[in-house]
Amino acid sequence: MKVLVAGGAGFIGSNLIDILLTEGHQVVCVDNYFIGTRENIRHLAENPQFRLYEQDLTDLDALKAVFAEEHFDYVFHMAANSDIQASALSPEVEYRNTYSTTFNVLECMRLYGVKKLFFCSTSAVYGDVQGAEVTELYAPLMPISYYGACKLGCEGLISAFSYMNGFHSLIFRFPNVIGPRLTHGVIFDFVKRLRENPTELTILGDGRQCKPYLYVKDLVDCILRFYEYVPEGVTVYNVGDDTQSTVSDIAQIVCREMGLKDVAFRYTGGVGGWKGDVPVFAYNLEKIHATGWKASMTSDEAVAQTVRAVL
Amino acid sequence: MKVLVAGGAGFIGSNLIDILLTEGHQVVCVDNYFIGTRENIRHLAENPQFRLYEQDLTDLDALKAVFAEEHFDYVFHMAANSDIQASALSPEVEYRNTYSTTFNVLECMRLYGVKKLFFCSTSAVYGDVQGAEVTELYAPLMPISYYGACKLGCEGLISAFSYMNGFHSLIFRFPNVIGPRLTHGVIFDFVKRLRENPTELTILGDGRQCKPYLYVKDLVDCILRFYEYVPEGVTVYNVGDDTQSTVSDIAQIVCREMGLKDVAFRYTGGVGGWKGDVPVFAYNLEKIHATGWKASMTSDEAVAQTVRAVL
Repeated sequence: MKVLVAGGAGFIGSNLIDILLTEGHQVVCVDNYFIGTRENIRHLAENPQFRLYEQDLTDLDALKAVFAEEHFDYVFHMAANSDIQASALSPEVEYRNTYSTTFNVLECMRLYGVKKLFFCSTSAVYGDVQGAEVTELYAPLMPISYYGACKLGCEGLISAFSYMNGFHSLIFRFPNVIGPRLTHGVIFDFVKRLRENPTELTILGDGRQCKPYLYVKDLVDCILRFYEYVPEGVTVYNVGDDTQSTVSDIAQIVCREMGLKDVAFRYTGGVGGWKGDVPVFAYNLEKIHATGWKASMTSDEAVAQTVRAVL
Repeated sequence: MKVLVAGGAGFIGSNLIDILLTEGHQVVCVDNYFIGTRENIRHLAENPQFRLYEQDLTDLDALKAVFAEEHFDYVFHMAANSDIQASALSPEVEYRNTYSTTFNVLECMRLYGVKKLFFCSTSAVYGDVQGAEVTELYAPLMPISYYGACKLGCEGLISAFSYMNGFHSLIFRFPNVIGPRLTHGVIFDFVKRLRENPTELTILGDGRQCKPYLYVKDLVDCILRFYEYVPEGVTVYNVGDDTQSTVSDIAQIVCREMGLKDVAFRYTGGVGGWKGDVPVFAYNLEKIHATGWKASMTSDEAVAQTVRAVL
């Protein structure tokens, strides 16, 4: 099978490509290194089953040329601005990198007759649900970040394009995804700052923000388990683990894995890490668990494994 | 109060402006005549309380200049591609005229500190609900038209911008809105074709497509009743009437109002008018009715009144 991985030089995309290649697929990656990096895919340069286009997905004409040249059986669309904290000051970053990239991918699928899509969505589409355990049918969807807003918009586009063009689309709503090649987020940040100063750690909020963290290999395993049997239309799953980690837990795990003791934690106070951050979130995972898939590690284990991977 | 009516030369926008001016407000209209027309606002040219900018809302820099020049208290965002049938062949029309215009309006509100928003949304965000009577909390939202998809994306943006910037936003989800200055849709179409040939009328589908139609003056009345008291965050209402009209009903009403008898109806067959059309739709209106507002006419009465207005 020949697949496009849009945003394949990114954290999740590059981990997915590694497995797709070992499964024998031909992989075409389109990435402009907005968040992805050359390092993430450097090891693939000599692989004859891998081809790279260094270009911006917001350039529709350039993307059409890729679709005209390659003949994709499947599109994995992983491209987005994934740094919610960064885009809080610049919604245009999400408009371009999350929404417009998705529109262009869908438009090329329509124009070039590609019918199968996997899309990375997010728990951020739900907004601040105040502790509710959300199923895929939770309503209303009121995102509080520009990231969540644009991902919700993308889901809407996928719904209409799928109906109008007979696409088979799979949407996974992920929590925080962590693991090797992580580029930002609380773990990345704690490790970086503790390297600079191993005696003290500033923690945004009150440390009680509590969310599920999913190890990237569990995520890729889940994608690969489902992508071949997607029914026509749109299928949505919450994907994650039903345990959560608090930010204080994460700070302690990072210190433990780095072998640091007696680190002074300084809390900035308040309930959320930054404006647009959902402080407490828990999934209802009955739908995905009913298929037989379950994350291989708890949220805390995923955190510990990630610290070991990025050290 | 000084207000922006984005898309004010359009069907709904121009009807709204007429009332805003009679209520004593200063009105600034931005429109590029994509669907709106000069005729709709020609009667306002000499009104000192009215100012017009003939420009495209997708031009963010030009829109910033308007926000910098004027100091708006309130934004009514009515601009969109409202011709669902036309955009079925060109999703880019919706991306530009429905989604991008909304992003730019919200971004300018953020940058220039405007806090109050009214937004025209649509029943199309719900998708094909297979006869369910939808409340504002209906899930999942699976639009089947690019129009519905982009409007859902706009609602997501409004949710995030409102949270991040303290906006007070009112979202009305309308059904088909009809009345004077209508530019397209089934009534417009029937009248036009019966003028050309008063003996025969081709009807898309089986004629049993059944949806609520709302008279534009009822809609404007509803907007004006609510816009001054919007709480912080986002408030969503279904707005319409709880009666519906079938396409066959509409054909009969149009013939009756035009004084035509013995017109031969020819049905193209199938359940929907065109791909992306939701054939059967009914609102649950308990939320808006609980406020005391109710449409002044039934769906069939709105149709008859519209035929008289456009004849």
